Amino acid sequence: MRMYDIILKKREGGELSTEEINYFVKEYTKGTIPDYQASALLMAIFLKKMSRRETVDLTKAMMNSGDVLDLSQIEGVVVDKHSTGGVGDKTTLILAPLIASCGIPMAKMAGRGLGHTGGTIDKLESIEGFNTQMSEEDFIQQVNKIGVAISGQTGDLAPADKKIYALRDVTATVDNLSLIASSVMSKKLASGAQGILLDVKMGNGAFMKSEEDAVELGKIMIDIGTNMSKDVVAIISDMEQPLGRTVGNAIEVKEAIEVLQGGGPEDLVELCLVLGSELLLLAGLNVTREEARNLIKEKIKSREAFRKFVELVKAQGGKEEQVLHPETLPKGKYEIKFISDNTQYIAHIEAEKVGSCALLLGAGRENKESKIDLGVGIYLNKKVGEQVNKGEAIATIYANDEERGKQTIEKLKTCYQYSDTPIEERKLIYGIYDKSNVK
Amino acid sequence: MRMYDIILKKREGGELSTEEINYFVKEYTKGTIPDYQASALLMAIFLKKMSRRETVDLTKAMMNSGDVLDLSQIEGVVVDKHSTGGVGDKTTLILAPLIASCGIPMAKMAGRGLGHTGGTIDKLESIEGFNTQMSEEDFIQQVNKIGVAISGQTGDLAPADKKIYALRDVTATVDNLSLIASSVMSKKLASGAQGILLDVKMGNGAFMKSEEDAVELGKIMIDIGTNMSKDVVAIISDMEQPLGRTVGNAIEVKEAIEVLQGGGPEDLVELCLVLGSELLLLAGLNVTREEARNLIKEKIKSREAFRKFVELVKAQGGKEEQVLHPETLPKGKYEIKFISDNTQYIAHIEAEKVGSCALLLGAGRENKESKIDLGVGIYLNKKVGEQVNKGEAIATIYANDEERGKQTIEKLKTCYQYSDTPIEERKLIYGIYDKSNVK
Repeated sequence: MRMYDIILKKREGGELSTEEINYFVKEYTKGTIPDYQASALLMAIFLKKMSRRETVDLTKAMMNSGDVLDLSQIEGVVVDKHSTGGVGDKTTLILAPLIASCGIPMAKMAGRGLGHTGGTIDKLESIEGFNTQMSEEDFIQQVNKIGVAISGQTGDLAPADKKIYALRDVTATVDNLSLIASSVMSKKLASGAQGILLDVKMGNGAFMKSEEDAVELGKIMIDIGTNMSKDVVAIISDMEQPLGRTVGNAIEVKEAIEVLQGGGPEDLVELCLVLGSELLLLAGLNVTREEARNLIKEKIKSREAFRKFVELVKAQGGKEEQVLHPETLPKGKYEIKFISDNTQYIAHIEAEKVGSCALLLGAGRENKESKIDLGVGIYLNKKVGEQVNKGEAIATIYANDEERGKQTIEKLKTCYQYSDTPIEERKLIYGIYDKSNVK
Repeated sequence: MRMYDIILKKREGGELSTEEINYFVKEYTKGTIPDYQASALLMAIFLKKMSRRETVDLTKAMMNSGDVLDLSQIEGVVVDKHSTGGVGDKTTLILAPLIASCGIPMAKMAGRGLGHTGGTIDKLESIEGFNTQMSEEDFIQQVNKIGVAISGQTGDLAPADKKIYALRDVTATVDNLSLIASSVMSKKLASGAQGILLDVKMGNGAFMKSEEDAVELGKIMIDIGTNMSKDVVAIISDMEQPLGRTVGNAIEVKEAIEVLQGGGPEDLVELCLVLGSELLLLAGLNVTREEARNLIKEKIKSREAFRKFVELVKAQGGKEEQVLHPETLPKGKYEIKFISDNTQYIAHIEAEKVGSCALLLGAGRENKESKIDLGVGIYLNKKVGEQVNKGEAIATIYANDEERGKQTIEKLKTCYQYSDTPIEERKLIYGIYDKSNVK
């Protein structure tokens, strides 16, 4: 088999065989196929597309390129949640202890942020001492003991995906449905959960700009999961503006704690209720969707969810004090407000650009080597549909470098559009899909 | 400017600006753009195509990536001929002395062979002592003195094309009209001739498999030349079977000598007459096409063309004896015949495959490091349309390794198709185009 012939076939719009896809993934991961041939193939795949069968094969090949976690030692049905990436998305911080408090094991592998989207692992490191690098053994043991663990990858999961993603990132071949679906699913499948909930983000802050594309991506991923005997549910949720009111690291942890304590912004709370209910159903809890939702609300109200979070932090070596007193978490020393010139309604907030503002402040990584400033971040005093009075703050920036803070405010101002008349609030959930409503 | 944005633009079918094309060519040649980004762009160009304007810009950028020869010291209008690559094509060996014998300076830069097509420089090296590496000064001096010189590239012509071509060769992005046209024309334009004659090969042994594509390629190249104030003529000629009866190195030199002496196979002679007439017209000779053709015939008949070849060989240090007695040129020691089982007509000879047979014998290069065996080759006793009797030879192989010779015969047998009834001879010339009949 020759890589040249595989490129040629895809260039001509042909359907690659399972053997050809396996050959590419295996040899590229080993390094016997050079980057320049892989990038030519990826561009051909991007433009000529892949069939569902090819997408499933690519996912399997990438999943099998490294370790595949065996979570069978965990008691109960293990479920996992994955977001396709958004700005201000701190749902994992909330859902892991919340679902665990409902008696469902949450063995959560999470990642670091890159570019304009943040990462759960970075956010958790705002808590002093929190260990995000667990061994597989400790990880499983902790889940069995307290029902929840959140760790960076243990072992070498889907190395082919890492290598291929890094190449796609610099060759303009990221936003293709088959390539995104196989990348997400290869990692999730290698992480060993039985039930997978996908939060497919849609809008200007997400890979998928249109509802149609987001639904299609969800369907492909459900298809891949079904093909591999996993239960997959995809929720299409809004990412036209950041989720909740905070973007950063420690500042997002604070907001997550608020939600776990019964407060927090409406959109974030609602998304957690929807995602949480689906996770309970995926885990096989014998309840209706409505009952699941009520159970979750109850776990928040009773403080069991928050106590589970405290338990999680302690178990992983984090400073309990900081969770009980979130005001002690890191916080940028310069607070700069973006003040409204007029009395007006917020019509639009460009989510991706707000993510870039956080990046500019130092909250994210420009590249893999960048160091993160955990205390900096953005607070959105006003969201889409809300009215702001003249002289009131639209947003607040927390910076550790005054100059950068000022630059960020200038950039942040360009993320907003306004209206003189009331604006309808944005819809949050656009659909819930599983194998029953996917053909 | 970022390479990423250039890839993205072309991926979406956009038209690259002159600045973007210049940036890519310059930075890739320098090595600041990595191969994997270049190959992604080339695949996007392949699939999304380039406009005429982009193709002209790409050609200019590649032409200007290295030295551009100044042939103004040569007296008279310098013309050049280029073939897009075929099997058994030894026309340059014939045309250079032939046109020079008509008083037109022939300053010919030629190349080595790679893959299934041979190279003029390799062929000339069959003549003992023939120097193919001249300095620019010696090259120009010799043209002024005897009217003709054939050399490998002096100086560093179109290095961007070399680098880009090498990458296309391994990423399945060769046979795109804009990429072929810009590759050919960047080299030709850097070689400094005022008039350029393009022999665009068409058929199974050429890049262009259909007449439509060949004409389109010719038109694009005329367009590029016109844009740069050069006179360009494109001839579409047949490459469904090898040209002439010989494929190899010394064996092709022998056939070229036959033509220069008034003999040689009909198709090769005819193509030389057609190409030669066009070269005379391009050089500004004030004659009709018919008169040009007669002048060339006359130069062959009078032996002036052959004497010019002998002069050329002597001037470049080659052994005159071998030209006067071509039987002393290198020749494989094993002569193996491919005998016909039946009395039949030759219906088809796969040119590209015959080229691969010559490669297998050792007449060509598998890769840039391969050494060539100058004495081996193939003689086509019968060509398409000719009848062969049972027991008669269809072809003859000259090998220096008996085993390889036998393998080659087996492969050669698969290149032929037969017919019991007479077959029409193939047409040789499909059209002559210049700026007057190209829109």
